[in-house]
Parts: sequence; C-alpha cells; structure tokens
Amino acid sequence: MNKNDKKKIYKPKQISGFPEWLPEIRRTELLWFDHIRTTFESYGFCPIETPSVEELDAINAKGGDGEADVDKEVYVLERLHKEDGDKEARLALHFDQTVPLARYTAQHFNDLVFPFKRYQMQRVWRGERPQAGRFREFYQCDIDVINVDTLPLHFDAEMPAIIWEILSSLPGMENEKIQIRISNRKILMGLLQACGVSDVQKYTSLIDKLEKIGNEEVEIGLKLNLRLDELHEDFANLFLDLAEIKTAKGLSGLLRDFITRNDVIARSVSDEAIQIMQEGIEELAFVLDQLSHLPEGSVVADLSIVRGLDYYTGTVYETVFTDDPAYGSICSGGRYDDLASNYINKKLPGVGISIGFSRLFDRIRSQGKLPKLGISPADILICLPEDEARGTMMETAQTLRKNGYKVETFHSASKIKRQLAYAEKKGIPYVWFPPFSGNPDHEVKNMLDGTQSKADPQNWKDN
Amino acid sequence: MNKNDKKKIYKPKQISGFPEWLPEIRRTELLWFDHIRTTFESYGFCPIETPSVEELDAINAKGGDGEADVDKEVYVLERLHKEDGDKEARLALHFDQTVPLARYTAQHFNDLVFPFKRYQMQRVWRGERPQAGRFREFYQCDIDVINVDTLPLHFDAEMPAIIWEILSSLPGMENEKIQIRISNRKILMGLLQACGVSDVQKYTSLIDKLEKIGNEEVEIGLKLNLRLDELHEDFANLFLDLAEIKTAKGLSGLLRDFITRNDVIARSVSDEAIQIMQEGIEELAFVLDQLSHLPEGSVVADLSIVRGLDYYTGTVYETVFTDDPAYGSICSGGRYDDLASNYINKKLPGVGISIGFSRLFDRIRSQGKLPKLGISPADILICLPEDEARGTMMETAQTLRKNGYKVETFHSASKIKRQLAYAEKKGIPYVWFPPFSGNPDHEVKNMLDGTQSKADPQNWKDN
Repeated sequence: MNKNDKKKIYKPKQISGFPEWLPEIRRTELLWFDHIRTTFESYGFCPIETPSVEELDAINAKGGDGEADVDKEVYVLERLHKEDGDKEARLALHFDQTVPLARYTAQHFNDLVFPFKRYQMQRVWRGERPQAGRFREFYQCDIDVINVDTLPLHFDAEMPAIIWEILSSLPGMENEKIQIRISNRKILMGLLQACGVSDVQKYTSLIDKLEKIGNEEVEIGLKLNLRLDELHEDFANLFLDLAEIKTAKGLSGLLRDFITRNDVIARSVSDEAIQIMQEGIEELAFVLDQLSHLPEGSVVADLSIVRGLDYYTGTVYETVFTDDPAYGSICSGGRYDDLASNYINKKLPGVGISIGFSRLFDRIRSQGKLPKLGISPADILICLPEDEARGTMMETAQTLRKNGYKVETFHSASKIKRQLAYAEKKGIPYVWFPPFSGNPDHEVKNMLDGTQSKADPQNWKDN
Repeated sequence: MNKNDKKKIYKPKQISGFPEWLPEIRRTELLWFDHIRTTFESYGFCPIETPSVEELDAINAKGGDGEADVDKEVYVLERLHKEDGDKEARLALHFDQTVPLARYTAQHFNDLVFPFKRYQMQRVWRGERPQAGRFREFYQCDIDVINVDTLPLHFDAEMPAIIWEILSSLPGMENEKIQIRISNRKILMGLLQACGVSDVQKYTSLIDKLEKIGNEEVEIGLKLNLRLDELHEDFANLFLDLAEIKTAKGLSGLLRDFITRNDVIARSVSDEAIQIMQEGIEELAFVLDQLSHLPEGSVVADLSIVRGLDYYTGTVYETVFTDDPAYGSICSGGRYDDLASNYINKKLPGVGISIGFSRLFDRIRSQGKLPKLGISPADILICLPEDEARGTMMETAQTLRKNGYKVETFHSASKIKRQLAYAEKKGIPYVWFPPFSGNPDHEVKNMLDGTQSKADPQNWKDN
C-alpha cells in the first residue's frame, strides 16, 4: 500500500446476540465458572467436552417429531473456499449439549463406566433472527447421569440439590430468591391417555406455553384441538385445573382431591392411564421428600411444568426468580427413558439439568449485582523507582510469585505517582517498592487504606 | 413412530479434525488449562474472551496482502433456515486470536487501561481439507501486551520467560527438552532493503519454509525470484548464511563477522538499511540478555526464524522440542508495530505469543506421558451398605464436602464388592463406610494400599 493512500478504517461494533465482556466482567464470569465446576466435581461428576460441531445427520437423527423448532435455529458451517467436488459431511454448531451427550455416550459406550455422571460447560449456538436480549451464542452448564437399562430415582433428587447449592451461592446471587419447580410428566401423560388423546406432543407444547400466553389462550387452544378429536369439552378445564397445583407439601392429597373433583376422569379413565398417573404422583412425591432438607420454598411441586421437548418421560424441572417468574426458567431439565436410541441399540435412561449460564449471568450483571473485581488479577504491582532497580524488581517478583502471589511489574521508571495511578486503575490492591538509591528497604503500600510499611519479600503476607 | 417399525440407527463416528477426549483425558486437559491460566495471571495478565465469530468484513479488513493462505481456511456460518431477504452481515469462525484481539482493542479502546496485558484461551477453527493429524478445531493460549504509541522492549523478554515457566512445568512435560528460538525481523528486513528488494513478503515466506523444504529448494526459490528482480545471484547464499546463525551467546560478534564476510552487503547497502539491521541486532541482544537467568539452551537466537505472517515487525519467537524440531513450532509469536490500524486511528504496538495448545497436548497424550488421572474427580466414594443408611450417607457426604473433599455417593445398596469395583474403575482413592446395622462406626478404606480404619467425617484428613 502506498503510504499516501488514505487508510480505510473498518469500525468494529458488537455483533447482535454474541456477547463479549470487558476484562473485569470476564474475571467474574470465570469466578462463576470455577464455582459451578467445583460444585459439580464435589458431587463426583466428571468433565467432558465435545466439539463445537456435530454432523448435521447426527443432529437430524435425534430430531424426530418435536425438534422442528430447534432445527430452524441451526447454524451450518461452510468452508469459504470449498473446492468443487469436496464431498464432506455437513457440519452444524450444536444448539444444546444433550444431542452431543447422546452421540458421545453411544460412540464411547465401551470406554465409559456407568452410571456415567458427567458435567459439560460449553457454548451453544442458536441461529435465530437477531433480536434484542436474545443470545445466539451462549454458555450452558449441564449435569447428567446416564445408566444402562435402569436408573434409580435418587438421581432425580440429586439434580435440584446440586443446583440449589450452586444458585444460592454464586457471587452476586446470595440475595436472590430462586425456586426450583418440579413436576412429573407421567401425571399429565396419564391424564391425556385417560382423555383418549393420542397426539400428546401437541398438547404438551400448548400447556408448556401457559406462563407465556396465559390461561385463556391455552384454554382456547385446548378446546379447539380437543374438539377436533371429538372429545369432551370439559377436558380443557381439567388440564388448567391440574396446572394450578403448586405445593411444597401434601402433594398426594391435593392430587387425590383433583381426581375426585374431576369425576370426568373416573368416567373415561383406563386402568393403564390410572397407573401411569399414579406412578408419576409417587415419583414426584419421592423426589420432593428427598429434598425436604432444603430451605422452605426453594423446591416445590408445580404441575404446570411440562417442558416443550418431547424426550422427557418423568421428572421435569424449571427454575425461576421467585419475584420475577416471567423472566423464564434459568435452569431446566428432566428425566428421559432412552437417551441415545438413535445412535445405539441399548436402553440408556438418564436425568439431567442445565443452567442457562449466559442469561443468568447477564441478568445479575445488568442489575449491577456482580462483585466488583479489578481489571488485573494481580495482588501486587512492583514499582520501578529507577532503572538500576530493575534486577531487584524482577527478583522480588519471582520470590512473591513462588509464595503464591500474582505479581505485575511496572515497565518503566516513570514518576511514582503515575505508577500508583496505574495500580489504582487496574484495581491492584498492593504496591511494592523495591530498594533503590533513595531507600535501602523493601516497602509495601496497601492501596485500600493507604498505609505503607517495611516488608520482606520472603515472608510477607497480605491481610 | 409405530412401535413395530425397525428403528434406524445413526452410527456416530469421530469427525476428522475435531478431537474429543474421554473424561480422564479431559480432566488432564483442564489441569493444563488451569496451570497455564494461573501462570498467566501470576504475571498480571487479565482474561478476555471474544465471540467465536467475527464479521467476515472485519476479518478481511485485517487481511491485507499476506492473508490469502489464511482466508482459504475460514469457516463461514449459515442459518439452516434463513428466510429470503434476511440482510445480515456474514459471520465467520475466527481462525486465530490476534484478529479478534485487534478488533476488541479498537472497539473497547476507551474502556481499557494501557499497557493492556491480556490472556485468551479459546478454540479457533481452520476449515482445511480433512487430513490425518491436522486439527480443524483447536485451542490456542495467547498472551499479548498492547500499548499506545510505544511499548518498552522489556515486554519482548517477558513473553519467553513466561512461556518457559509454563512449558517446563506442565504435568507430563517435566522431562521434555524444549527450546525457544528468537530472532528479530529487522535484521532480515534491513538486509533485504540493502539488496534492493521491495516485495519483502515474497522473500520472508520463502525463508520461513527453510526447515520444511530445505536449503536447496529455498536457494532455488530465492535465486529465481532475485533474478527476476535483476539482482545479484550471490544474495541467495547471503540469506542462507544468515539463517545459519544460531547461538545463545556472542550474537553481536557473529553478526559482525557475517557482515564482514559478506562484502556484498558493504557494496550495496544504504545507510538506512544498515541502521535497521543494527537496530534489530541490538534489540535481539537485549532480549537475550534479559533472559540470561533461564537454564542454558532454553532460549537461543536463531536467525532462521522469520514467521510467515507479515504483521510482525521486530522480535519473533518459535518454540520446538529440542530432540524433534521437525515437529514444528508449538509456541510462536512476535512484535507488531501497529496492531489495530485497520480498526482505529491510533498507533497500538504490541508483542504476543501463542501456545498451540491442542497440538502440544495431543503429542504428550499420544506418547503416553500425561499423568494418569481417574475418571471421577471424587476423592471419596461413600458406600451404601443398606437402604436404611442412606440418610447417614447423605449427611456424611455433605460434611466431607464442607471440609473441601469431592464426594460421590453410591446409588443403591448393592453388594459391597460391586461398590468397591465401581470406585476402582472410576479411580476414586478412598471408599467410606457409614455406620449401619452391622457396624456402629464410620470406616474408610484406602484403595491404593488396601488399609481400612475408623474415621470421623468431621475431622478426617487424607494423606
């Protein structure tokens, strides 16, 4: 380029839906990740990480009926300079961590030890139209337990216990009131079967929208669809009545009342349907009972919880801010009877839950509730009072690092005032002065309270 | 789906170029990441993370002349179900972390504190044709320091010091002999200018291939190109002669000899070219001098190091296994005078270095040198000797977790032998027996030496 050419500047801007943070926020984000990872591991979950992509065929194999909505959101990859005739499988960025987990479990089946308890904290992508407040790239933090043939119900209770421990102690979340809402799909499934409904997915996705579109709309939708199936109109109210049941205690009694109250069930119910409902009621009661040690209100049964995805077959979870449930679920999941049947000829039941990390983090961040961290992770800035002190500065830094401190050294012998200002701006709590021609001693200044005192790099301790 | 339909199974397989590990290997990978992150932070580098994508225009803005090779490898994203008429900027997965850093620094310029010292550990993507041993998705771990207008040369010396500290202490790398090779592009630039060569990039990429294609090929290439430029044929040997200089000490003397020996330089050299060469020699000598505290052989001047990318303007680094230099550089970087001139009207010099994490990790892994970790991160498995002991098991687990231990609980009261086998397979070092009808005491078994003894969950300590 000719030096006289006027340079063309490409002015960078935020890409809609792809968040990025300043260093001090990224530091807090890492603090959150560390906290979540430590808690997952403290329950014996092992880490895995899958590639960012899956073969599009693998995603579609999982697809089935209910995934049309998700399919729409998939990003596929194209090599910019693909040669003609390159025959490669089409790759797509994963839109969740459940499809990759199913594929991973099937692929590595012989190398895994079951029950396979794994955590996974990765970015996922949803190629939606750009819109305010919706992420197209975001983190999820998942735990799942998978076993062969059967999986004890105790794991259904372990999930909310872990999640509650995490969400109630994330830095900045301590004062948030959150609630984990649990249901069991078998109750609804039994009820639908009792009503003679065969296309279950249509109803569950309708009922799942209850919080979003409101009772009236759901009722109209239900009536419309039920009428098409030539079924009793009263059934619509039945589902809304069921969805009203929200309780921490006495679930079984409430459900007994519900069945007695709605004699329409008794009239049309099959033995099999009754049994499925009964199973769901017992499982849900068991899970709640196992969680009775958690603080009051942290976990409740909520029969309006359905989850849109059709692979859940028992326990289902959602988690909301108690004072702002309309924000939607920040942590969801459930049990599936058969995780990987599209990839392997084995029955692999599992239960899992997923923290919607980015949505949660961004909410706490935008509300100004995150702890304030400095830009620099350094505990100490070592000043350079004069060029001749550089050797001492470097040695002092290494000594302090060996003792476990994070240490930045100042790069030039500029005015001390400027060096102090740098420490202040970067949020470094201690400034260290190595010996120099003006002072034979090491001294350290506490930037918070302004005190300054002699110090020995070998055995100095911060407060 | 009709239950009688034969189920179609999609048999999953590894996608070429997208590595994925079993849990026990992933645990070691996390150990490496933690180690690198801790060391970066101990020098005061702050973390950032950029989106996986950049606008294609932003990548091309950086492009310039020398990026054609890289451009070929870019993966672009397409929404699978994009509607007609959707007008969105084209997005591409980043192929390195330098382009995103440049864009980030320009975009957030007013919110950053300079010198801006950041680390970044993310996946990058190269959409190459699939071929054995080449990753298309891999991790890089980068540090860079960026300042406004000028950046002291001391930072050029800080980079290799940090890298040496990391590479010599990564778990499994302790016995590897590695060498950081440093040069300064000004020396070659001055020499090329002395030879009247204007299209510098053509020559530097040729010389950069020395280790790959050998002296003879490079000589032919050089002669061919130099002849086209109607320059003296002797110059070709000149560059090869320079590239032979590899030394830990006495660099200036060797370069003086080189200039005297090749009187062709004296005949054709301009004052400006001499000065550029001289600057490069002094800078390189300074950086080496600052690193004299490192063990012998860990850092050397190597005048054959050029780096292909054209944005380096001074110090350049490569790092090799001393006993297998043909494996190629595992950690490279250098100084650039002007990082972000395509995005902002400021002069932002910087220096940085990047660990080719995945290539390095995969080498040590495939050579069987990684430390052997268990599948589970748990320190302790608590057995369930009988169903009635479940309450005690859960309480004991919580007590031990509060004391900092990672604890898995066994899910069913199956035979103790089976529970011990589970701990063994998952690599859990301690098995805990809570009190039960057959034994009123807590006991703990050390799986490594087989000893078993009474223990108190409140104050038990592992060895």
